[in-house]
Amino acid sequence: MKAAILGYGNLGKGIELAIRQNPDVELCAFFTRRDPASLKTNTEGVPVYSVDDIPSHKDEFDILFICGGSATDLPKQTPEYARYFNVIDSFDTHARIPEHFDNVDKAAKESGHVALISCGWDPGMFSLNRLYANCVLPEGNDYTFWGKGVSQGHSDAIRRIDGVKDGKQYTIPIEAALEAVRNGENPELTTRQKHLRECFVVAEEGADKARIENEIKTMPNYFADYDTTVHFISEEELKRDHSGIPHGGFVFRTGVTGENKEHKHVIEYSLKLDSNPEFTASVLVAYARAIVRMKKEGMSGCKTVFDVPPAYLSPLSAEELRAHLL
Amino acid sequence: MKAAILGYGNLGKGIELAIRQNPDVELCAFFTRRDPASLKTNTEGVPVYSVDDIPSHKDEFDILFICGGSATDLPKQTPEYARYFNVIDSFDTHARIPEHFDNVDKAAKESGHVALISCGWDPGMFSLNRLYANCVLPEGNDYTFWGKGVSQGHSDAIRRIDGVKDGKQYTIPIEAALEAVRNGENPELTTRQKHLRECFVVAEEGADKARIENEIKTMPNYFADYDTTVHFISEEELKRDHSGIPHGGFVFRTGVTGENKEHKHVIEYSLKLDSNPEFTASVLVAYARAIVRMKKEGMSGCKTVFDVPPAYLSPLSAEELRAHLL
Repeated sequence: MKAAILGYGNLGKGIELAIRQNPDVELCAFFTRRDPASLKTNTEGVPVYSVDDIPSHKDEFDILFICGGSATDLPKQTPEYARYFNVIDSFDTHARIPEHFDNVDKAAKESGHVALISCGWDPGMFSLNRLYANCVLPEGNDYTFWGKGVSQGHSDAIRRIDGVKDGKQYTIPIEAALEAVRNGENPELTTRQKHLRECFVVAEEGADKARIENEIKTMPNYFADYDTTVHFISEEELKRDHSGIPHGGFVFRTGVTGENKEHKHVIEYSLKLDSNPEFTASVLVAYARAIVRMKKEGMSGCKTVFDVPPAYLSPLSAEELRAHLL
Repeated sequence: MKAAILGYGNLGKGIELAIRQNPDVELCAFFTRRDPASLKTNTEGVPVYSVDDIPSHKDEFDILFICGGSATDLPKQTPEYARYFNVIDSFDTHARIPEHFDNVDKAAKESGHVALISCGWDPGMFSLNRLYANCVLPEGNDYTFWGKGVSQGHSDAIRRIDGVKDGKQYTIPIEAALEAVRNGENPELTTRQKHLRECFVVAEEGADKARIENEIKTMPNYFADYDTTVHFISEEELKRDHSGIPHGGFVFRTGVTGENKEHKHVIEYSLKLDSNPEFTASVLVAYARAIVRMKKEGMSGCKTVFDVPPAYLSPLSAEELRAHLL
């Protein structure tokens, strides 16, 4: 299976590494919006092309991993490049998924390719767990918690504040809320009761720290609805202690069965990830395998993780899966 | 979707209840090996037929839930009744799944039906989690723990001992082992390090309790390889405190990614179930919906949970799923 990567940020680098762990996938090309000569990848011998050259490589690769951002890149890129390859992205703006799906579906059907959008862990593995659990326990409650992990959006928001040199934000699920859900208490939880926000901030020399702290804590949407703590630290400390990109979270479904709904059930799925982009990339590579199979079976159009039979993700045969994993 | 149930034990009763929670499923008939007139179900107005009458009801129902035991019932029943209906079972003898699959596949293909075997939570939801996690983290370790819950097989083994009037056995995962796995320590665990066995035994009057306890603790395969505790209690206590059928367990995959495998990831899936048979039944009813869809699409033959696109389990449309659960 021949693969190409478009975009060499955290996710693109994660794909590059994940491919090394999947011997049936061969990395054949990088595409970039920068000057190709300026892009230094971690894989020798794999050519780097300009994104403008994509049309001339039509169907040279079985899958194009599109590693752009959800805000502005993917809404354009995924439909456009579905004209030339089977494609996969990690589009994660939940509210705009239906619109993105329709655009990609149209392009992929017209060109006869298979596309898969919104792959990763949320959307992705978390979505799968929400779906399975909802089908199995039709009467119940859903809970999703995120963290402990770094939120890129919230870290960016901190860095935009006047007087802030750098900063990192951790989203942290509140243990008491997790326990209440885990015990089947079906709590109704406010935003503040579900997650804490912890910020590590490097202030510019002479900046007013009290004002920065206040601006963070009162920032609408991002922080105002949460209990937020702000720690001012040095640039060295930030680099030493907060340069990772860990993340994770929990999906719960609690439900009831029985003559009088007397039996409670708790389904819990959780992830604890040292590297958010590398794990996301690992999910995408597994789904790329599925896309290539679906294309070989004559399918086309846009898919999501909901449409893919789990066996399609595995390099093992159906017989092997039944014998060893069922 | 018209459904019939064969076998009215714990699982059959669970299916009967689960159908009430799924408005798109209609319970139309029970089949039994007993005298139909003697079977008192919990659903008025639904006819009870003899299992011998199955051929005369061919294709009257969209799905037959086969609720027999894995040791001797299902290996005969599922291939046989796949000739007359789409069928689903909870065959759970892992080692014999390939053979059972082949037998059911042959029968279902010949008659043009869809069959799904080994559905429930293990095999079933646990298998799915093993598969997804293995595909996403190809370099890693798998761990499955069961409990806390009642093991029917081990309870039966206790009851066969001379001088035992009744008994119940709980399988309990060892907290220290769970924690070591959860922390990404990748421990190598012996049988004894993974699970405890706790037995509640009602002895016959005058029976030698020391001998019973010794026979339990030294029983090969069942107890000898475990740390086992035995509590002698009264019949009343057993009925009052141990009449439920709870179960559950944990599936872990711990793996690594990164340039130097420096990033650890932990995927954990767990179930905490007040009623093992009612939860199993709930899984079967969701998969019955998928089977009926696959049949409508022209498929036939034997399937497992690995072959079913997750969206097929839901009564919601693909659009609704993308908008609300992805």
